[in-house]
Amino acid sequence: MKQTLKALHNAVAGSSLHQVTNPDSIELEGVQSLQAASAKDVSFVTGKPGLADAKASKAAVILIPAELVAGFEKPALIVPNVELALIAALNLIYPPRKPQGKRGNCVVAGSARIGEGTEIGNFVSIGENAVIGKNCIIGDNVSIGDNVQIGDDARIGPGCVFHADVKVGARFVVFGNSTFGADGFRFTLAGGIHHKTPHIGGLAIGDDVEMGANCTVDRGTFEDTTIGSGTKFDNQVHVGHNCHIGKNVIIAGQSGVAGSTTIGDNTMIGGACAISDHVTLAPGTMVAGGTCIRNTPDGAGVFAGWDGLLFADFQRLRINLKNLVNFQKWTKRVESLEKHAGIEVKK
Amino acid sequence: MKQTLKALHNAVAGSSLHQVTNPDSIELEGVQSLQAASAKDVSFVTGKPGLADAKASKAAVILIPAELVAGFEKPALIVPNVELALIAALNLIYPPRKPQGKRGNCVVAGSARIGEGTEIGNFVSIGENAVIGKNCIIGDNVSIGDNVQIGDDARIGPGCVFHADVKVGARFVVFGNSTFGADGFRFTLAGGIHHKTPHIGGLAIGDDVEMGANCTVDRGTFEDTTIGSGTKFDNQVHVGHNCHIGKNVIIAGQSGVAGSTTIGDNTMIGGACAISDHVTLAPGTMVAGGTCIRNTPDGAGVFAGWDGLLFADFQRLRINLKNLVNFQKWTKRVESLEKHAGIEVKK
Amino acid sequence: MKQTLKALHNAVAGSSLHQVTNPDSIELEGVQSLQAASAKDVSFVTGKPGLADAKASKAAVILIPAELVAGFEKPALIVPNVELALIAALNLIYPPRKPQGKRGNCVVAGSARIGEGTEIGNFVSIGENAVIGKNCIIGDNVSIGDNVQIGDDARIGPGCVFHADVKVGARFVVFGNSTFGADGFRFTLAGGIHHKTPHIGGLAIGDDVEMGANCTVDRGTFEDTTIGSGTKFDNQVHVGHNCHIGKNVIIAGQSGVAGSTTIGDNTMIGGACAISDHVTLAPGTMVAGGTCIRNTPDGAGVFAGWDGLLFADFQRLRINLKNLVNFQKWTKRVESLEKHAGIEVKK
Repeated sequence: MKQTLKALHNAVAGSSLHQVTNPDSIELEGVQSLQAASAKDVSFVTGKPGLADAKASKAAVILIPAELVAGFEKPALIVPNVELALIAALNLIYPPRKPQGKRGNCVVAGSARIGEGTEIGNFVSIGENAVIGKNCIIGDNVSIGDNVQIGDDARIGPGCVFHADVKVGARFVVFGNSTFGADGFRFTLAGGIHHKTPHIGGLAIGDDVEMGANCTVDRGTFEDTTIGSGTKFDNQVHVGHNCHIGKNVIIAGQSGVAGSTTIGDNTMIGGACAISDHVTLAPGTMVAGGTCIRNTPDGAGVFAGWDGLLFADFQRLRINLKNLVNFQKWTKRVESLEKHAGIEVKK
Repeated sequence: MKQTLKALHNAVAGSSLHQVTNPDSIELEGVQSLQAASAKDVSFVTGKPGLADAKASKAAVILIPAELVAGFEKPALIVPNVELALIAALNLIYPPRKPQGKRGNCVVAGSARIGEGTEIGNFVSIGENAVIGKNCIIGDNVSIGDNVQIGDDARIGPGCVFHADVKVGARFVVFGNSTFGADGFRFTLAGGIHHKTPHIGGLAIGDDVEMGANCTVDRGTFEDTTIGSGTKFDNQVHVGHNCHIGKNVIIAGQSGVAGSTTIGDNTMIGGACAISDHVTLAPGTMVAGGTCIRNTPDGAGVFAGWDGLLFADFQRLRINLKNLVNFQKWTKRVESLEKHAGIEVKK
Repeated sequence: MKQTLKALHNAVAGSSLHQVTNPDSIELEGVQSLQAASAKDVSFVTGKPGLADAKASKAAVILIPAELVAGFEKPALIVPNVELALIAALNLIYPPRKPQGKRGNCVVAGSARIGEGTEIGNFVSIGENAVIGKNCIIGDNVSIGDNVQIGDDARIGPGCVFHADVKVGARFVVFGNSTFGADGFRFTLAGGIHHKTPHIGGLAIGDDVEMGANCTVDRGTFEDTTIGSGTKFDNQVHVGHNCHIGKNVIIAGQSGVAGSTTIGDNTMIGGACAISDHVTLAPGTMVAGGTCIRNTPDGAGVFAGWDGLLFADFQRLRINLKNLVNFQKWTKRVESLEKHAGIEVKK
């Protein structure tokens, strides 16, 4: 959607114009990286290394932080936070699709309630007593079980499955083929057979949560598995039964949280991490990508590596492991010393 | 479903009443943890640490093992195995939904056979010559390919895909968006191109198998990939082509088994494990969460860590790795000793 | 489909008959392993260890490399590359199903274009301005968003999701429940809230790409995420936003590539690998299963282990780690030496 620089300036709180006389006359039609931008695009620079590209860019206007603007001779918008300004520009020029209220070829149970303005794709099933909020977009081939509740303004990707009784807050976003509310993995071995514990708990997800494609979050055994408001998951994340994931938590791709684990608010977990069961991560914990956390750490911190070491220890360990390649050489040197000193060592 | 303590007592073999005079008069309407239980709930205690909560609980009756009952002054049901009694209580008070025999908006090939009592959801496709057993529940948006066989009493979650020729035993349970019978990953590099080997084998799954959401199990190249009876998978488990997974095997979330690997009966594999291809795990092997198994281990055992060490070695390794953070300090001490002893070391 | 040995001989370039007089009279009805083959089956032997089984096999004819044929007294087809000959035999005797041009119960937008001969399953949605090539097979319950382009001869498994604007080349093969074009995982923390960056980039996949079940590949932020021609993914592979995956790359099961990473042509990545964000792998890199790559390596090579060591270093490390189990013993020996030498060490 065509915009003017004036509109963008108005949309970014705290912004000021630089090398621009008539912002109403500058037309903006796209957002691009410095190199790819054409004459009707907004672009952005975040640090000194980008300045040369910024100077060479064809962009109509460049989002720039105040500390880089000295000597910058092109039209720019000085902004307090470049990434937030970029988000504003993207939302202005590429406004997200609005729900159109139409319904595809779908089956909605008589007792289900669908909010005003909600758009439902093709081949969607909505079960008994389900409650869907206003202005949602429900993608194709979504299955919404009995008693499921989904808040206003949700965006549900195609192929997602909501098993019965799952509750989701407002503005929930999820991409294709994610599955919510499967039974937890709890079996008891007796007489050579794994006996299943039925799961009567649910799954309760807060407001403003976003999840990627092909994620799975299980229901609780007796009480609900919970996901706090503002939390964001990447693709292929798995959260087990009885977990309590806090608010504003980040979990990157293919990471998993085993059953009955509690993740404090504002924790950030990188990709390909495995968080064990019955663990507690303190609020504000950071877990580097590829990390295994097997036990509850002592307080918050930055953890890394296959055994969840503190980051500083992990970095030293990496160096020492490289030295370790020569460990046998050192053991031989100790043996020589012992021989030289006449020390006899019991084997 | 409302029950009486008498009914529960009858449902749990080997149970006996404690501090109860008229079990028919005690009404049970739910099952809950000790803290959450209200006056019409069953609850349970499994060990000494729970006794204080058990004494304070509002539950109508508490499932308790014989060794904890001395001095316990509340109505209780003494049971031989608390978890099995809990399962019995859950199944009694929350009986699982029964198939209702109805069919949603679905497409069933003329040559397919559907057993009596089986319920089929909306937007389900069932291919030519498919055979579905009696009293199954097939969820919404399931795709069942040609010649697929599914046994009696199956519970197939929404969005699951059965590629052609997959065979599944009785009482199979699977949650949403799992995929069965994709081709195995077998390519041959020749002339700079990866040439695909067509897969004519199938996938045969035994009885009483349960799998979570978003699992994948591939078909075999010539013969069937096989999953033994009684085996249970958590969410996002992957099993490659030509694998033979034994009976009563447990595989927790996000673990994977690469192609042509054999897993013996009663093996238990934790979450986030990677079992390499062409490996054999002996019956009864245990693999801790987050473990990589790269080679066939010597017999059964408990394995852990990124290189599949025996658990005892792994625990010692973890301690030593922490010491290792100071490895360079030790190498300097050896160098000092060498200098002191007048030993010259070739670099 | 019944064939003759003559037809197979014709189908395998560079093959020659061995111990066969009338290849037109030898009927072939299947392909099997040496042990499982019956008298109308083709089988194959690739190395000396298989020769005993080859001699005992009931197969009608055995694919054999020239170097094993001396003294082999059964009907055989001497072939330049056994696996390629096997692929030819499989394609000859089990010709893959051809699209039948029919359409199931599906919803196709008026502005979408579907190529001649393309078969569409049940409960498929195809969005506005989508373009599907000729002779494709689109499985059941597939959702194809607006402006998606799919090339000729594609095979799209049931339940796959193509979010809007995804472009895929010719002969694309994908199995069930994979998801293409979800937004990348890019959030900015400000004021305690994770602010989402809208994604206006797309996803462009080349020709002759094959992917397994339950894979996920995200769209780019501004420009396209790209997957080169000839690349093959196993099941549950994840590729993040802004990645550039080269041509003829192999990625095995459950491996993931985080955002903005570039993978050179002909790279091979084993299963359960985690490749970090903003990393570059040189063309021809090999990454063993279960490997974490945290930083861009120095050039191509074979990498292994939880910290992406070169393979030779990794193998030495594994041995040394086993020695390390006794690390404390060595530190005590150093302490004894120091005591013996009268060296005092500050703690």
